[in-house]
This record gives sequence, C-alpha cells and structure tokens, in this order.
Amino acid sequence: MIPVETLTVVGVGLIGGSVGLAAKTRGAARRVVGVGRDERNLARAAAVGAIDTFTSDLSVGVATADLVVVCTPVDRVGADVLAAAAAAPPRAVITDAGSTKGNIVRELAGKLPADRPTFVGSHPLAGSEKKGAAHSRADLFDDRLVIVTPTAETDLEAVSLVELFWQKLGARVVRMDPFEHDRALAVTSHLPHAAASGLAGVTPPAWLGLTAGGFRDCTRIASGDPQLWAAIFEANRDAVTAALDKFTDRMAGLRQALTAGDTAGVIQWLTEAKQVRDALGS
Amino acid sequence: MIPVETLTVVGVGLIGGSVGLAAKTRGAARRVVGVGRDERNLARAAAVGAIDTFTSDLSVGVATADLVVVCTPVDRVGADVLAAAAAAPPRAVITDAGSTKGNIVRELAGKLPADRPTFVGSHPLAGSEKKGAAHSRADLFDDRLVIVTPTAETDLEAVSLVELFWQKLGARVVRMDPFEHDRALAVTSHLPHAAASGLAGVTPPAWLGLTAGGFRDCTRIASGDPQLWAAIFEANRDAVTAALDKFTDRMAGLRQALTAGDTAGVIQWLTEAKQVRDALGS
Repeated sequence: MIPVETLTVVGVGLIGGSVGLAAKTRGAARRVVGVGRDERNLARAAAVGAIDTFTSDLSVGVATADLVVVCTPVDRVGADVLAAAAAAPPRAVITDAGSTKGNIVRELAGKLPADRPTFVGSHPLAGSEKKGAAHSRADLFDDRLVIVTPTAETDLEAVSLVELFWQKLGARVVRMDPFEHDRALAVTSHLPHAAASGLAGVTPPAWLGLTAGGFRDCTRIASGDPQLWAAIFEANRDAVTAALDKFTDRMAGLRQALTAGDTAGVIQWLTEAKQVRDALGS
Repeated sequence: MIPVETLTVVGVGLIGGSVGLAAKTRGAARRVVGVGRDERNLARAAAVGAIDTFTSDLSVGVATADLVVVCTPVDRVGADVLAAAAAAPPRAVITDAGSTKGNIVRELAGKLPADRPTFVGSHPLAGSEKKGAAHSRADLFDDRLVIVTPTAETDLEAVSLVELFWQKLGARVVRMDPFEHDRALAVTSHLPHAAASGLAGVTPPAWLGLTAGGFRDCTRIASGDPQLWAAIFEANRDAVTAALDKFTDRMAGLRQALTAGDTAGVIQWLTEAKQVRDALGS
C-alpha cells in the first residue's frame, strides 16, 4: 500500500531531491511534484528521478498534494508552509525538513484555520556537504533519525502519516516537543557547527599545511553554507546563545586548570569528555 | 643502502611500533631494538615484526644504537633522551616523536655534552585512535608530514640523517624552529583537541541519540588518552593558553553578532571560516 498518492516537495535541493527519490524508490509516494525557483536544478531533479513533474508556482505544485514536504531554508519554511496551506486540498498534510522547529511553531501560531491542511514539523538528521538535487540519494534517510515535533494542537492522524512516511524512507522516528528539540539540537548540532567554524576561523592559512586528521575531522562542517547556517543560528538564537555560553564556560574550566598547573583537573576535564564521546562509539 | 644499522625505539606503542615496522619494511634500518616497560606489549611488537629484540633496560637497549627514536609521552621524552644520550655510542643520533618540542629543548638545555649523541626533535603528524604496538602499521607515515625541529646548536649532519630516516618511512619532512612549531601546533592540533573535548563535555549523554555526522566528526578526537593530552597541554601551556584565548574571542564575536541580530556579521563570520576550511580540501 502506497501511503501517499501525490507528494509535493517544496525546495528541491539535496534533501528535497532525496525525499522525492527515496519516496519513489521505496513506494512511499506514487507521484512526486517538485516546486522550486531554479528551472535547471528542477530539470536535473527530474532527470535523476527525484521528481516526476515540476513548477515554479507553489500554489500549482501543491494543488493536488496529499503530503507536502517543505525543504527550504529555515527562515523560509514558515512562509512556505502558509502558502502551501492556502493552496493545498484541505485533506493534505504538510511537514518540513528544517533544522529548527520552535521558530516555525511561532510563525504559524494562529495562522492555520481548522479547515486547512495540518502542519507537523519534522527534522531529518541527514545531509551531506554536497548541494543540489543532482546529488539526491534514495538511501539518504536509511537508518537516520527523523525527529517529529507535534504540538499539543497537532492532529494525531497527521502525525502518524508523517511518521509512517519517514519510516517508509528508511528512517527511525522519534517524537519531541519542538522547543525541547531546539534546545537539544543547539548543543548536538548548532554548537558543533559554531565551534568547527571558530577553529577554522582562528587558523592562519599558512598553518593549514601543519594540520592532520584531527583538525580535518573537527572542522569539516565549517565548509557548510554560511547563509543556511546563519539562518539556523538566528532561528534558534536563544538556545544557541545558551549553548555557546555553556561551551565557553567549559573551555574556561580547562584554561583555569591549565594555568593553575592542576594536572589532575586537566585530566579530569578530558576524562569527562572522553566518557561522553566513548559512549557514542566511532 | 640501509641508512641505519641498529635502530632503537624507546616506547613501543602505536607510533613506536609503526616506526619499527616501517623501518624494517622500507629498509630504513637493519635491526630494531624495542625498549619498554610492558613485556607483553613488547612481545606483541616482536610478534608483528615491529621489533627484532626487546629489553626493559633503556641503557642496554641503546648500547649499540645508531639511531634512537624516543616515542614516550611528551612529559617523559626529555628524561628518556638524557638517559639514551648517557648510554648510547657517541656516534648515535637521538630523535623523538613528541607532539611538543619547546619543552624538550628547555629540558635538554646545557645537558648534552659535545662528546655525547646529538638530539634532533621530530614530530610525525600521524596517529590513530588505536593504542598499542599490536596496531603497528608499516604505512602509518606514508605521505604524512614530519616536522623536524633543530635549534641553532643542532649538528646539521644529524638533522640530515633524521630527515632521511623519516623520508625512508614514506613521510614528507619540513624543518621548523621548535618554538614556532609549538605555537602553530597549539592552533592546528592542541586547540582542536580541546574544543572537541569541550563539545563532548557539554553534551548531556541523554542527547547523544540526537547527534549526527557533524557531531561525530567534530568530537572524534575527544576519545584520545586524557593523560597523554594533559601532558601535551602542559608541555605547551603558554601557546595552548594563547590559542584558547584567541578561540574564545572568536566565539564571542559570533555571540555578539547573533545577539545583535547582525545577520550580515554572522554570515561574514561563517564565510571567513568556510574559506579557511575550503582551502584545506576534504
């Protein structure tokens, strides 16, 4: 049984294209419509089988949709959800793939009438340094976590459909409060991006030849798209700021132990970190 | 032509074992003697072909050495070099594999008479999360950088022998002042380790399930040995403290732009980091 007759993907980049490709390949949707601004990118998405048809007009693209997945940058998700809700059939369910969730809840508050499609937030923890629909992968969500973030008002049937959809794409699903999601991801995703960028930012280019695997690993994500990440930081400003403060305090603890000649303190500081990292596995 | 007749490796862990194995495999030494405290580990090193014979007595182990490579933790290198210099033939050359170099120069200052073996500092930028001689790899130094750190007093013939030895093991060699080495590596190696550990240290274990590839990459090196890394931080305390301060200032710049709602500033901050990281390649 194919759960979704017509799937519309708004924003057909790597994530959106992979949603379409995985949905087609895994039998999660019969037909995929792509909505985007860049005709050449949409044509490439169609060429690799990620979408069946495409349009640059969102209201046309969602007109017959059963499920809409909004995969635009986090500062555009709210507006795109509202536009999709205005044009999609009332039975449709709308979700997204954004890295922040609380900002969307705030932006949509009181703006989705009961006779319009329901919105359920999603965040697939999957991605790649590569950009664009041409790099779409049918296995991008395989065994990845998707966090689904209903609020107290969200229709439970819509939540189940969205969860089933991601599971069909190969993902594991957990349900979380959107604001709790943002506090956690500030630490597990946004802070690491900031720290990686901070490390790269203080490294004189002349010393890049003196780096090894540790530096490479630590700073890899600093190659991410600055505009996308600035939008994520701003959409989750309070939690990111709190995470930055917690991190800075932690680093100050190392500095303090080091300058005090407190070897046991430095070892303890490193051991606490090792225990957390070892618990994650390689 | 085999440049070294008898090579003695003091401290036969992953690095020391790989020095021995690579030297034998690449024809850089005819005979390898291992010196260590742990008989079982030394027996394993011999079993995998990393060393030919072994002893727990350093002065016995270096008695006929042409080249001694000290691969003990950075807080023990100085003492081991002095012990080796006292017992090795005067023609011998001593080098090491430590991550810090200035502390060794300070520890040896005025303590190596002209009629005793010469010391030349080395730092191979190679390693692994794995520990112990059993994981020795003949290709560990292949195309890796080895930084050789002579001072104004170092015998140039000894420098050439050490450089030739590392090249025979497959490494690229650069020569640097030991204190300049320490300032650079504080930023390119020691600071990333501290930041990775800081990230792991502020992550509640309950949220580890909400991490993805970025967190994994960023924090991988936090699994390193706390005692070894505490010794590195302390051996290079001034440069590490300066690097921590530079990093903290940089992170404060992000926080400031973020809380001021300065989107252009956040994008600029991220773009500067991306440019550095992109220059390194994947």
